[in-house]
Amino acid sequence: MAKSAGRKTSHPIVSIIMGSDSDLKIMKDAAEILEEFGIACEVTIVSAHRTPERMLDFANNAHTRGIKVIIAGAGGAAHLPGMVASISPLPVIGVPVKSSNSIDGWDSILSILQMPNGVPVATVALNAAKNAGILAAEIIATSDKTILQKIITYKKNLKDTVIDKAGQIEKEGYKKFLK
Amino acid sequence: MAKSAGRKTSHPIVSIIMGSDSDLKIMKDAAEILEEFGIACEVTIVSAHRTPERMLDFANNAHTRGIKVIIAGAGGAAHLPGMVASISPLPVIGVPVKSSNSIDGWDSILSILQMPNGVPVATVALNAAKNAGILAAEIIATSDKTILQKIITYKKNLKDTVIDKAGQIEKEGYKKFLK
Amino acid sequence: MAKSAGRKTSHPIVSIIMGSDSDLKIMKDAAEILEEFGIACEVTIVSAHRTPERMLDFANNAHTRGIKVIIAGAGGAAHLPGMVASISPLPVIGVPVKSSNSIDGWDSILSILQMPNGVPVATVALNAAKNAGILAAEIIATSDKTILQKIITYKKNLKDTVIDKAGQIEKEGYKKFLK
Amino acid sequence: MAKSAGRKTSHPIVSIIMGSDSDLKIMKDAAEILEEFGIACEVTIVSAHRTPERMLDFANNAHTRGIKVIIAGAGGAAHLPGMVASISPLPVIGVPVKSSNSIDGWDSILSILQMPNGVPVATVALNAAKNAGILAAEIIATSDKTILQKIITYKKNLKDTVIDKAGQIEKEGYKKFLK
Amino acid sequence: MAKSAGRKTSHPIVSIIMGSDSDLKIMKDAAEILEEFGIACEVTIVSAHRTPERMLDFANNAHTRGIKVIIAGAGGAAHLPGMVASISPLPVIGVPVKSSNSIDGWDSILSILQMPNGVPVATVALNAAKNAGILAAEIIATSDKTILQKIITYKKNLKDTVIDKAGQIEKEGYKKFLK
Amino acid sequence: MAKSAGRKTSHPIVSIIMGSDSDLKIMKDAAEILEEFGIACEVTIVSAHRTPERMLDFANNAHTRGIKVIIAGAGGAAHLPGMVASISPLPVIGVPVKSSNSIDGWDSILSILQMPNGVPVATVALNAAKNAGILAAEIIATSDKTILQKIITYKKNLKDTVIDKAGQIEKEGYKKFLK
Amino acid sequence: MAKSAGRKTSHPIVSIIMGSDSDLKIMKDAAEILEEFGIACEVTIVSAHRTPERMLDFANNAHTRGIKVIIAGAGGAAHLPGMVASISPLPVIGVPVKSSNSIDGWDSILSILQMPNGVPVATVALNAAKNAGILAAEIIATSDKTILQKIITYKKNLKDTVIDKAGQIEKEGYKKFLK
Amino acid sequence: MAKSAGRKTSHPIVSIIMGSDSDLKIMKDAAEILEEFGIACEVTIVSAHRTPERMLDFANNAHTRGIKVIIAGAGGAAHLPGMVASISPLPVIGVPVKSSNSIDGWDSILSILQMPNGVPVATVALNAAKNAGILAAEIIATSDKTILQKIITYKKNLKDTVIDKAGQIEKEGYKKFLK
Repeated sequence: MAKSAGRKTSHPIVSIIMGSDSDLKIMKDAAEILEEFGIACEVTIVSAHRTPERMLDFANNAHTRGIKVIIAGAGGAAHLPGMVASISPLPVIGVPVKSSNSIDGWDSILSILQMPNGVPVATVALNAAKNAGILAAEIIATSDKTILQKIITYKKNLKDTVIDKAGQIEKEGYKKFLK
Repeated sequence: MAKSAGRKTSHPIVSIIMGSDSDLKIMKDAAEILEEFGIACEVTIVSAHRTPERMLDFANNAHTRGIKVIIAGAGGAAHLPGMVASISPLPVIGVPVKSSNSIDGWDSILSILQMPNGVPVATVALNAAKNAGILAAEIIATSDKTILQKIITYKKNLKDTVIDKAGQIEKEGYKKFLK
Repeated sequence: MAKSAGRKTSHPIVSIIMGSDSDLKIMKDAAEILEEFGIACEVTIVSAHRTPERMLDFANNAHTRGIKVIIAGAGGAAHLPGMVASISPLPVIGVPVKSSNSIDGWDSILSILQMPNGVPVATVALNAAKNAGILAAEIIATSDKTILQKIITYKKNLKDTVIDKAGQIEKEGYKKFLK
Repeated sequence: MAKSAGRKTSHPIVSIIMGSDSDLKIMKDAAEILEEFGIACEVTIVSAHRTPERMLDFANNAHTRGIKVIIAGAGGAAHLPGMVASISPLPVIGVPVKSSNSIDGWDSILSILQMPNGVPVATVALNAAKNAGILAAEIIATSDKTILQKIITYKKNLKDTVIDKAGQIEKEGYKKFLK
Repeated sequence: MAKSAGRKTSHPIVSIIMGSDSDLKIMKDAAEILEEFGIACEVTIVSAHRTPERMLDFANNAHTRGIKVIIAGAGGAAHLPGMVASISPLPVIGVPVKSSNSIDGWDSILSILQMPNGVPVATVALNAAKNAGILAAEIIATSDKTILQKIITYKKNLKDTVIDKAGQIEKEGYKKFLK
Repeated sequence: MAKSAGRKTSHPIVSIIMGSDSDLKIMKDAAEILEEFGIACEVTIVSAHRTPERMLDFANNAHTRGIKVIIAGAGGAAHLPGMVASISPLPVIGVPVKSSNSIDGWDSILSILQMPNGVPVATVALNAAKNAGILAAEIIATSDKTILQKIITYKKNLKDTVIDKAGQIEKEGYKKFLK
Repeated sequence: MAKSAGRKTSHPIVSIIMGSDSDLKIMKDAAEILEEFGIACEVTIVSAHRTPERMLDFANNAHTRGIKVIIAGAGGAAHLPGMVASISPLPVIGVPVKSSNSIDGWDSILSILQMPNGVPVATVALNAAKNAGILAAEIIATSDKTILQKIITYKKNLKDTVIDKAGQIEKEGYKKFLK
Repeated sequence: MAKSAGRKTSHPIVSIIMGSDSDLKIMKDAAEILEEFGIACEVTIVSAHRTPERMLDFANNAHTRGIKVIIAGAGGAAHLPGMVASISPLPVIGVPVKSSNSIDGWDSILSILQMPNGVPVATVALNAAKNAGILAAEIIATSDKTILQKIITYKKNLKDTVIDKAGQIEKEGYKKFLK
């Protein structure tokens, strides 16, 4: 499968899959943040509803190919994350996509989140592919101190950005800031 | 698979499957009404999340075994009806079950109903396994005049029952009827 | 009634009705996919709320005119599919339309889906007229091997399209694919 | 049809109908309050889904039989109030019933309330058959000064009851009142 | 108060009020249909939240001024219809307006519909001011045979329009109709 | 009005009102926590829908009687908090009550929370009369150092209780704790 | 922190905080109305999720810096208002912001409103920062007669504006008013 | 903190925290399944709203104490999982608890799931503490082959149980199975 651009030489350890290429404009955020963390990932399409055998193959083999975490995005009656989680022993992160056929995202969320006992999907917020990537990095970091340190730094940067903006508002006043 | 009690000698043409034996207390209504119509059915458990390969086998082979219609019930993030529909060329009727892990049934409904283009599931009301059975009979009746006649009679009986009760209320008054 | 353009010479066996001509831009998808399968259909307006007698006539007579399946679309407090299903012995497929007066489609869905015992409507996803057409074809295919084969081919084509796109993403990388 | 017990000798001017006798335990509240106002009513079952022709007859003829207002209660995909309103020129009051097959009442409410332009249903709160009766009385009162006066008195009594209870709480304290 | 343009010489018998002038673009539909029926109405602003005393005065006096029916529209936490209904003995029709501060209309609907026992509001669909006007006409028609006849004609015209369009689609085919 | 039992000799500065005596079993929690803080309150019934003039009088005069904060509880289409807030210049705390006629509390919440610009209601969680009392105390504390200190102590006690229980679980293990 | 432009010389007594600078276009309404009332406020960013220690410091110290009321706005899983309320003894007003990552505002509302016992947040309507400012003024007014008088005047002005517009509609007719 | 009973001698690597001891009857399921997998865990109470400093300490130090994964459960406006995730670099699994103050669980789900960019919470289904435990095990298994093997075995056992029950139903028929 396609290795992400930033890490061509490494073996991918996170697999980002989605039910349709129309989900890619959302799901690319997962790949980009993983590249930022220096974690090799692959990106492809695996549709539970249109390619069920491919989905089964993918889920049965991902852990034998060296994949550590699967990120799966889908919209509407979104079965991909749950079906992959039912087969693979890897942690599966589900991204509910607010696709064009979704009812404000409620169907995407509920059909990914509400999995039965025995088959968890680690669900993130609607369209939150970036958070899926960060969560994958946190999981990788449970056995990789370099990534752990990068996450600590990442969170510190989030803080610094907010504090900078807060300082700017406090200094120049909210009215000037708005302009 | 288990043929329904009432039609042991016929080959089943409707298959009633469900994700868990806890759904059987709802799903049995489908079998009972089909038996009433004299349509042979089989009843078993096929879990998308716990037995994905069995589900794949079932869905790939149902039409070659002589099955004409599949009724699939599941609750929560209910993937069974949609997954079977993605594989089988048969019409699949989905019964959203209000299982104990469901959020008032909304998750069951949305994850069965909101299928993407190309993969329809004929969804009936929450817990409406009886209606799933009637719908299966109506489908069978599109090429079976005997069943068609039974459905016409069934709907007439529904009407007669209501008219009888209406007559009773009108005759004796609603107060007496309530006692 | 109007036979669909592609099958003028055949007798229609699927009837596509809708509550208002404003639903036609959604409901035409059902006619188009049926034409693709070579199944003759008719398309017209039957309003439960504005032409109740016409609706009653339609529902009482459809099966005597050779119709095998009815597809009914409506929005808001959508009574057409359920009312037709209450009268006709044919399978009725309901398409909840997200019309301008609908509350995000919830009213359309619930007033079509939540039918009482005895009167099933085979409900498909919001605005999913195409899936309604496919479901009608699957029902026709229960007694027509040619159509069954077409459905098997159709699902295979869905798979091939996804596999092609997946191959493209894997080969050129998701970044190039997005451009 | 059955005249309400309290007004046997008068011709009924309000008709209370419901889709199933199981709705009667809710709908009787409408009859009781109308009797309190001295307005003659009839009570019966008319099912849109099980007796469509009876429904059509009822709706076509109610105003010719001297009925002034129709109160219709139903649950789930509740089509009775809207269908009757589509045929009859009389004001139709809809009571969404939280029946056993309803999803917390949302389906009952939306399929009664969200009627298209041209076909209003005067919807009251979930299970609020009593309010349906009062609203019918208010409609009758637009041309009946005696009833108008009774409504004014009724609202005054509501006020007096509250003021009495308020006085009691204020006098004895809320703790004693609770016991 | 302002009499509607079309009936300047008659005394208004329907009063159309709304919480804000921003609701007028919706609520004007009620006035226009009433004018079509030849029923004199007045249109003004009465805000429960900004002019509570004016609202009280309005509600206390409407029936003494010859008003027969009140139509009240409001959005968000919409208290106007319910508050007027709590004071006036007249039938009050509530129009939930999907105003800019409303959550998809749910707040408008629930705060108008879910009135307690004793205080009904005849609620119509979201933004359905036209239906509010028709319902008011139906109420007036309970004691005015001329209006009753106009409503019967109005419903017949609805039917004829649908039948014309149906005929057009059936004759020229849905494809040509869509163009 | 009734002064709360614990502070008979002080003039009440918080007024706790509710639409019906059936709300008292919820609303008493506000009185009890205020008594715990030593803040005098009164408790009574003021119904927007059944005693509108009383409501108007109450709201117009509360601040002239020495009341500083109003707590208003109501359920269903809950207009009391918003109507009082529209008249009184005092801060009004709204408690959405999940009354028997409420749809899971959604109507109570939305009709209290979604007030238009100019008329805020300080809404607390469903049935959270205790929090309404604490919020009233916090408001009083903005000009009363003794109460401020009591609130600081109250929050510290909340913390200590949690820490005690945490210590107990950590010491004896969760299994023993559960027994 | 930044004092609001209109009150540079006074010590701020209301603090307006928000989780992200993207909330400022909504939250500025709170500052503007407070300036209109002549109440000094400060405006800054405090993110519960990105700057938790800053949030803790802010909440621990606000009341010692002379702040009387805190207004906190946030969207999505909005934890800022509740977390600040858990630490500070001051009244905290929560503004649910319909941010780009919010599901129609439902997540923002529920995660601010539904606080547990002991930790109230005074929640206002979705995006209703202006009402948050007015509520803060009402709280300040409980111990400041000048502000109380301004609020009374403000509400009178709201009334006068409505009465002016009502007069205009009544005088010129709604049709001319709409143009 | 309290080590789980089954693994007293190992250092805990999963930390199970909850906002209130009333959540323990749900959250114990996470500890039990982890014990089944032989993964040492600790169980305690950390309340975001009642012990914010303790929460901050916990979140800042968990990874330095050897914890690899945090499971956090809370109900209503559930801020614990998100707040811990905002501070700790570890993967945080959130369990929405349907507590007594929750609105059917919607508030619990949305306030855990809908986290902003940068701060993911791995959300599982309502009350699904068991799935949280399994997900934690899957995360541990990304660097522990023994646990990975146990998960593969666990999923195989789920399958075998279903196949056994399916066989039983097929053999004895559904009617006998139900008894």
